Amino acid sequence: MKAVTTEIITIGDEILYGQIVDTNSAWMGAELAKIGVRVKQITSISDNAEHITQALDEAKTRADIILMTGGLGPTKDDLTKQVLTDYFHTSLRLHEPSLAHLTELFRGRGKELTEINREQAYLPESCTPVTNALGTAPGMWFEQDGKVFVSMPGVPFEMKRMMTDIVLPQLKVYFKTPHILHKVVQTIGLPESLLSERLEAWETNLPGHLKLAYLPNLNGVRLRLTGQGTDEAILEKEMQEQIKKLPAILGKHIFAYGEVTLEEAIGRLLTERGLTVATAESCTGGLLAHKLTSIAGSSAYFIGSVIAYHNEVKIQELHVAPETLQQHGAVSEATVRAMAENVRLKFDTDIGLATSGIAGPDGGTPDKPVGTIWIAYADKYKTVAKLLNYNKGRLLNIEYTAMAVLNLLRQSLEPTVEE
Amino acid sequence: MKAVTTEIITIGDEILYGQIVDTNSAWMGAELAKIGVRVKQITSISDNAEHITQALDEAKTRADIILMTGGLGPTKDDLTKQVLTDYFHTSLRLHEPSLAHLTELFRGRGKELTEINREQAYLPESCTPVTNALGTAPGMWFEQDGKVFVSMPGVPFEMKRMMTDIVLPQLKVYFKTPHILHKVVQTIGLPESLLSERLEAWETNLPGHLKLAYLPNLNGVRLRLTGQGTDEAILEKEMQEQIKKLPAILGKHIFAYGEVTLEEAIGRLLTERGLTVATAESCTGGLLAHKLTSIAGSSAYFIGSVIAYHNEVKIQELHVAPETLQQHGAVSEATVRAMAENVRLKFDTDIGLATSGIAGPDGGTPDKPVGTIWIAYADKYKTVAKLLNYNKGRLLNIEYTAMAVLNLLRQSLEPTVEE
Repeated sequence: MKAVTTEIITIGDEILYGQIVDTNSAWMGAELAKIGVRVKQITSISDNAEHITQALDEAKTRADIILMTGGLGPTKDDLTKQVLTDYFHTSLRLHEPSLAHLTELFRGRGKELTEINREQAYLPESCTPVTNALGTAPGMWFEQDGKVFVSMPGVPFEMKRMMTDIVLPQLKVYFKTPHILHKVVQTIGLPESLLSERLEAWETNLPGHLKLAYLPNLNGVRLRLTGQGTDEAILEKEMQEQIKKLPAILGKHIFAYGEVTLEEAIGRLLTERGLTVATAESCTGGLLAHKLTSIAGSSAYFIGSVIAYHNEVKIQELHVAPETLQQHGAVSEATVRAMAENVRLKFDTDIGLATSGIAGPDGGTPDKPVGTIWIAYADKYKTVAKLLNYNKGRLLNIEYTAMAVLNLLRQSLEPTVEE
Repeated sequence: MKAVTTEIITIGDEILYGQIVDTNSAWMGAELAKIGVRVKQITSISDNAEHITQALDEAKTRADIILMTGGLGPTKDDLTKQVLTDYFHTSLRLHEPSLAHLTELFRGRGKELTEINREQAYLPESCTPVTNALGTAPGMWFEQDGKVFVSMPGVPFEMKRMMTDIVLPQLKVYFKTPHILHKVVQTIGLPESLLSERLEAWETNLPGHLKLAYLPNLNGVRLRLTGQGTDEAILEKEMQEQIKKLPAILGKHIFAYGEVTLEEAIGRLLTERGLTVATAESCTGGLLAHKLTSIAGSSAYFIGSVIAYHNEVKIQELHVAPETLQQHGAVSEATVRAMAENVRLKFDTDIGLATSGIAGPDGGTPDKPVGTIWIAYADKYKTVAKLLNYNKGRLLNIEYTAMAVLNLLRQSLEPTVEE
């Protein structure tokens, strides 16, 4: 079965000039995927009649559905409605229900309908108007040669309501779309290239209607398996069976299933086990504590931190022995182990975490270049330290270090997972 | 003079499926505007050879520059390089400097170069390779019929570095773009609507070739004055004269000139004055310290922090009197003043900063709803506390609080600035 395809056309200069980020298209893409409609192209153009016409001409050669947003405001630089009227060889006519809706909307705001807004009730005769429950510009649905063209406002909440209530349900009926399912597996600790090497055999053996995507981000790499079929229950079962094979291949590198961040996964683990945590941070300067406390409900497991930027603080507050600092330096296994162990005792927590390293750009030595970073985890039974080497610039060195500590924490909490 | 135009083509399914929001294009649009290049269209397509070819064909009919991002990963679903090789009728050949860079990159990570990554050093013969300082996929610069085509990775920090260091400067030279100057004035503490009221007369009197833009962000509102002209020196002087009028209008709301963050401005102030700082954080959970330590060289002024999430830590480490907590609560002026004053004494710094509030979503009471936050600044002479009320959701409440403390610090350091 050939997939139904969409092209999204956003109209307006704000996106082109980088004044706003286009979040509408991503939302639309995700919602369309849920009904089995694939976005083939997203096109952003300015409010220019010739350019809009050209974009429509190009879009209909490759997509079944053309969804437009923007260019429907009441001012004269918003041209979309006029362009569509010409494009479909029709003419504008007063649409009484839209006029009633506009009048009501203005009355609700305690205002009289202005002439300029009254014109928004004039719509192309050949379109089916799409009610804008939350704003003044109605949407327009056109059909031509089995293709559907929908024009919507660019205001995110108006567009979303229109899509959810009217456009998506009608597209489902019009195109009798197939079932599409997505499964996400969150991994950390393996770059995309090594992941794909490990997954090669598994991926090659996937049936043709299941596709794998690698989505790298700061947290690691998200794996997304997408399946398409006519029977949703069978598809769900097939996909679950494939996903079940992954722990044996990726082991401890999997930290969650579904749309979960590492911070959230750790928050759940700590809450479930009733464990508490404290951090002693040098090079991460508070980012590790910030990540832990970014989760709602983190006061159940996060107690406090000492940020020990200066060695004096490491000695006085974290009781790192001056000899340790002298002999091994602040960036050393001995120092970071003492920091993790002592912050745990200081705050009487189950777990202590620590970081000490050279984030850069200055402070490196031949022995310990910029990016040399020690991290540690300590609990009642053991202390684990790890040496990291990053070369990503100060901010990313700090960011990656915080994520590496969170991963060390996760792995220490899940000691039984086989690789 | 006809404006030089660009089309941005992003390649990859993640954007089409709505898995990620395309923030790259907005950044590129804004940077291109700074060198007088206008984005005519943004096109997002999937990793499909035919579709990429079609997009290139269409783009070159309307733009002078075609900037591509994405599709350069080492896995086999990344097709961009092969498509470009075919498109420009050339062939792949080993590019020794790229191989050396890749080998070095892997060595830095303590790893051997894999076969799959080694292939990334093979590049189309007719392109000029663009070094990727931060990643494995080199960029490619092609020229054809006076048009420029550049392919870059989709990873934001890799692309940005490549654009800033190489692509933008080379485009400026290649297209001899007109002189465009930008002057940025950083403000904080006035929303856009109040700023524009204050600036109305000044803005109206600007000559026609100088334009003002209001760019709100988490730090406040950036004012960007853009001038275009044929003589750079005259333009520079004209713009400086306009900028000189602003302090009399905006006073202490200006915190810096140029692309300087509030964190950087504060870092300079503290360094110049030889002052040191410590933080005592409850609701910001380390973010304030992280912001201070995000600046290179911050170890000159930042000493350390206590993150006191639990009241026990406030009592034991920051010597907040249990009676204060009982009588006024943790979120109170009395508590936050004690925190700021005592952390200053504890770490023997010139300045102590403190936060205590309800970031949400839980923990609010009728008296102190979510978003009730106290912040404080303390030095040898005085303690200043301030009550904030935010209603932006947990993460933004934390973010805005950290920025508000930094602004309180800045204002306390600049007591003589006239409004």
